[in-house]
Amino acid sequence: MERFFDEELKNLHKDILKMAVMAQEAIFRSVEALQSRDRGEAQGVIDTDDKVDELELEIDERCIDLIARHQPMAGDLRFITTGMKINAELERIADLAVDISQRVLELADKPVLKPLIDIPKLSVIAQDMVRDAIDSFIEKDVDLAKKTVFSDQEADNLRNLVQDELINDYMAKDPSSAPRAVPLLLIARHLERICDHATNIAEDVIYMVKGKVIKHHSGELS
Amino acid sequence: MERFFDEELKNLHKDILKMAVMAQEAIFRSVEALQSRDRGEAQGVIDTDDKVDELELEIDERCIDLIARHQPMAGDLRFITTGMKINAELERIADLAVDISQRVLELADKPVLKPLIDIPKLSVIAQDMVRDAIDSFIEKDVDLAKKTVFSDQEADNLRNLVQDELINDYMAKDPSSAPRAVPLLLIARHLERICDHATNIAEDVIYMVKGKVIKHHSGELS
Repeated sequence: MERFFDEELKNLHKDILKMAVMAQEAIFRSVEALQSRDRGEAQGVIDTDDKVDELELEIDERCIDLIARHQPMAGDLRFITTGMKINAELERIADLAVDISQRVLELADKPVLKPLIDIPKLSVIAQDMVRDAIDSFIEKDVDLAKKTVFSDQEADNLRNLVQDELINDYMAKDPSSAPRAVPLLLIARHLERICDHATNIAEDVIYMVKGKVIKHHSGELS
Repeated sequence: MERFFDEELKNLHKDILKMAVMAQEAIFRSVEALQSRDRGEAQGVIDTDDKVDELELEIDERCIDLIARHQPMAGDLRFITTGMKINAELERIADLAVDISQRVLELADKPVLKPLIDIPKLSVIAQDMVRDAIDSFIEKDVDLAKKTVFSDQEADNLRNLVQDELINDYMAKDPSSAPRAVPLLLIARHLERICDHATNIAEDVIYMVKGKVIKHHSGELS
């Protein structure tokens, strides 16, 4: 029975990893679609989201079922409830990749506004943060989780930079740029929110490992 | 022991309600601050968010502790895990009220762009949806939960209306309007995301009551 439970925990672990890979692919593809102005790729991200949603529900069900059948003690219970939270964060990350893809579709038939520099940079930070957050969960690595939490400030700064540039250098100077600048501004915000979800995952991992609440108190990390 | 457990479930119920009231007040106050251009009120919403965060963590802890100590069976377990999810949604709703308040601070020292009509309308829908979603949880009322899910389309439409108007009638015509139009556009998006979280709550309630997954399949509601 105990052994069977361990097996089920391992499978849960694997499925959360699968969910993470799907979310990471969705981010990667949505930013690829933006850079290559590829409608098909953007539509592909949108279409794949059903599979992400299905896996989220499956993992969620499995967690509740595991708790109900095995009534796990403190450590395992904490691992499962953290898994449920990470699962929900990953689903939202994939949703944000869908949001980005929708913006790509809005932009696809309009002329290019500007060469993209900071948005691809921001997308690299977002992808790194999601990867580090998930690695910190797998390895129970608190230091890596803390690194992820700290990176969020960089993402915020870059998002603000993109936003200020689009508002002051484009929209405020050329009125006709708004329908192209607004989707870019929103994409920067979608990417920054992906970073927020990666931060949430990292905070959950720190709590799972150390049993210490740092959520909502990232300034006090030490 | 059983009676003690029932008492704890009731307290959990009460605290989720308290969390809902705090989230609803945050929305109401942030939109009030927008309409009256009241920096103090906006700052008040931002400052109060620490209390919301604390309560979220407290409820979350309590849920895990309840599961660990009482090892509840199917129905109660489902109630507690739904409570955990609703708790997280309410925290995000309060965060969005903070986002709105930050936009209000950005707008406070700039001249008024336009009289606000659709944004206050959208805020009423958002507040109604949050109230209905929470009521549906308290009353285990599936019909009210379904009504909430359906209202989300109306919120989406109104958000698109606001966005199109700001882009086409303001930013695309008058380049100097962008720094004032963008915060308004973002406020409409923040409000629409509050509606999304209310929808998530309602979907969780339907699942809790009927044991049927409707999440990610709102088109199939019947």
